[in-house]
Order: sequence, then C-alpha cells, then structure tokens
Amino acid sequence: MTTARILSSAPQALTVDVALVAAAIDAANQCAIVCSACASACLSEGGEMATCVRDDLDCADICSTTARVLSRLNASDKQLTLSLLATCIEACVECAGSCEPHVQHHEHCRLCAEACRACEQACQALIDALKAV
Amino acid sequence: MTTARILSSAPQALTVDVALVAAAIDAANQCAIVCSACASACLSEGGEMATCVRDDLDCADICSTTARVLSRLNASDKQLTLSLLATCIEACVECAGSCEPHVQHHEHCRLCAEACRACEQACQALIDALKAV
Amino acid sequence: MTTARILSSAPQALTVDVALVAAAIDAANQCAIVCSACASACLSEGGEMATCVRDDLDCADICSTTARVLSRLNASDKQLTLSLLATCIEACVECAGSCEPHVQHHEHCRLCAEACRACEQACQALIDALKAV
Amino acid sequence: MTTARILSSAPQALTVDVALVAAAIDAANQCAIVCSACASACLSEGGEMATCVRDDLDCADICSTTARVLSRLNASDKQLTLSLLATCIEACVECAGSCEPHVQHHEHCRLCAEACRACEQACQALIDALKAV
Repeated sequence: MTTARILSSAPQALTVDVALVAAAIDAANQCAIVCSACASACLSEGGEMATCVRDDLDCADICSTTARVLSRLNASDKQLTLSLLATCIEACVECAGSCEPHVQHHEHCRLCAEACRACEQACQALIDALKAV
Repeated sequence: MTTARILSSAPQALTVDVALVAAAIDAANQCAIVCSACASACLSEGGEMATCVRDDLDCADICSTTARVLSRLNASDKQLTLSLLATCIEACVECAGSCEPHVQHHEHCRLCAEACRACEQACQALIDALKAV
Repeated sequence: MTTARILSSAPQALTVDVALVAAAIDAANQCAIVCSACASACLSEGGEMATCVRDDLDCADICSTTARVLSRLNASDKQLTLSLLATCIEACVECAGSCEPHVQHHEHCRLCAEACRACEQACQALIDALKAV
Repeated sequence: MTTARILSSAPQALTVDVALVAAAIDAANQCAIVCSACASACLSEGGEMATCVRDDLDCADICSTTARVLSRLNASDKQLTLSLLATCIEACVECAGSCEPHVQHHEHCRLCAEACRACEQACQALIDALKAV
C-alpha cells in the first residue's frame, strides 16, 4: 500500500498501471528477505544444502536490486527494465526449483519457494504490461 | 506475516520475541524502498534537494543491509547487531530530518519521513529487547 | 589479484578461465563505486542531471549484484549468469551514454563512462567464454 | 587509484585527506567480494562452517554498504559516518575471528581474514582522521 502511494506521488510519468509496478517491487523485496532467511536457516540443516543456499543468495541479491531499480521509475531505458525483470524471473524459478525438493522437511524452503513463485508472477505481469505499451 | 513465519521456521535459537525481529526487518525493508523511491522522485523536483537525495540513498543502503543481517538470525555477535541497529536508527533520524522540511510540498517526502520514523521505532524496540536479555 | 586468488582457492569446479571471472567481478565492483560516487557528485552540479543520476544508481545496483553473484561460482544455472551479464552490459551502456554528454564539463562523468565501458567489455568477454563451453 | 580520482573530481567539500576515504572504500569494497566468495566456498567444505558463512555474509553486506555510503561524500551527518565505520570494523573483526581457525585448511579463509583485517585498519584510519577534524 505504501509502495503504491509513494510511486503515485513521484513526478515521473508512468506508462503502466502503478499497481503493477508496486506489486512487483513488494514481491521482489519480500522475496529477497525470505531467500536471505532461508539461506541462513539451511546452514543449520543436515544434508546437502549448498546448491539451495547459493541459489537463495543469488536470488536475494537479484530480487533486491530489481526492487530498487523499479522503485526509481527511471523510464530512460525500457529494454533494461525488461531485461532485469527477465533475469529476476530466472533467479526465482531457479531458486524455487532448489527449494521445492525440501518442502516436506523444511518449512523455510516451502515459504521460500512460495515467495519466489509470487515474485515470478508479479514480474511477469509487469513485463506483459510493459510490452503492451 | 511471512517474515515472522520464516524466522519461526529457522532452526537457529532466538533470545528475543520473533515478532520484534520480524517487525524490524519489515520496517527496514519497507523504508529502504521508500527512501529509494523518494530519492528518485526528488530528482524531478525544483529547489535544493541534494542533501535530501543523499540522505535518502544512505538510509536506503543502511536499512537494506540491516534487514538482511537481521534475517540471518546470526547470534554469533550480539554487539554487532546492536551497533548496526544503532547506525540504522541514526540514518533514519537523519533522513527523516531532511525530508520533513519538504512534507508540505512533496507527498513522497512525507511518506519517507513516516517510513523512517517507523523503522527507527522498530529498531529501538529490538535494541531494548536485546539489551534486556 | 586477490579476487583471482580467492576464486582459485574455492572448491567449486570452473568451466572458464578464472582470470575472466575475476576481471568481470573487479570491473563490476569498481563500476558500482564509481557510479555511486558520480551520482552523488552530479547532485551538486548545475543543469539537468536527473537522468544521469538515475542511470548511475541503476548501474551501481546492477553492477554490485553482478559482482556478488559471480563471486559465488554458482554453476547451477549458466543461463541465469548469462542473463545477468547481459543485463549488466545493458546498464553500463545506458549509464555510459548518459555520462558521455557531460565529459567535457565533469571529470566524474568521464571516469564513470570509462568504468562503464570497462565493465561492459569484461562482462562481454566472460559471456563469450561461457558460450564457448 | 580510480576511486581517489573520482572522489577528487566531486564538487562536495572534504574535511579529510581524500586518500584515506578512497582507501577505506577500496578496502571495504574488496572485502565485500572476498567475504561473498569465501561464504560460497565454505559451503563446499566439510565440517561445521555455518558460523563462518553467516559472518561472511553479514560482513559482505556491511562492507558493501559502507563503501557505498562513503562514496557519496555526504557530509550532512559526520556522526552517522563514524557509527557506520565502527559497525564495519566490528563486522570485520567478527568475520576475521570466524575465518582464522580455518586458515591452515582453507586458503579462502586465510585470504578473507586478511581482507577483513585490511578493511578494519582502513576504516580505523578514517575514523581517526574524522575525529581529529
């Protein structure tokens, strides 16, 4: 809610629905924290978690940067926004895929896969809207 | 809500109420995005906004790192957590102070000062709880 | 030099020359700082610098994340690495393009465009090597 | 070298030797990458590395933010700079302490402890200079 309100108060012109931008920012920002928490939690679990931790950390960094870049409403390069959103989707799909085999045993992996899928969908909805302009 | 749930599912032991940690993470993470959006919006406003932008950017970086570090529930150095939380409070107070003179004219500065004050309070509540342990 | 040494000491297998990965990390990490410094310096210059500042900030975030992700030598998704490197190149080209009109008047814009071009080349050399595997 | 040059070309007034600021930025920025690489490398090592990984990740985030904040030459709050530098030193000391028990077996822990100590010293030299003003 706050995210949509601050974007609406910015003087930059928007070519897409502000609610879609805010949804992508909020989903990416939440996913970054969930991935970061999941990575740390995985370190205390038994078994082979190295891939899951690395994918969590990559996804956290990429989601965090995606949220930051989107928050600027910098319209100078639409292609860069599309490219970053596609990279973010790829990171989320990869991370969800690494967490999903662990969802039966680790609730943090279940929540992380869920956050990644939500971020993937919000980014895809924004890509679709940007391409339709 | 998701933040409290993922922290609760992590195997690391917690010495303080998980709700306080989750509240500080969510407030810092939201403040980071709001500061980043405010900085970019300020660039399109007339008048002398350089200090406001720099304080926004510093606050965004520090809040983002605070949220990340807290999300790890890394208990190896309580002093580091306290020191980072104090730095985050300082950044929020400084940024709120730079935004507040502009709240009459710029809604984004009003929302940013509000997010900074909320983050300041959530970090202070966590400091108080950590010191009481 | 340190970057190449720490990558060489990591147990993960590498499919490309470690010197190319280290060069991309160092160029992206340096570009992130130069873009961040240029953004702040631009705030004190006269004239219309908003686009330059926003492109600097986007480029700083994307370069910083690129360096971080590359430093993990996470081989689980080559496509993600290629996608991130392409996004980083796009950010560097965009930022260099925004700085270049100011190089006669602002040395920080000249140095920033130079750092962006160096990062663009190091990322492209790594893409070429990854695609040849 | 580039870092000192871009800081020197910024219009903001500096109260301390630019070489000290540049040295702290470069040391923190390098330390962030080394810590990030060390964390990922530790994931593939046997034994109990969870604390080392978490301290690496915290130190990477804090060093990265310290470098970014310093690069802005934002003089509006000297106390914030001092507080952030002290937090960065604490993170470096903690991380070096977690890596040092492993230096015989893991070259990446040796290089990481070395980068942490170098960052600690550069931040301390900058604190001393700022306090002397």
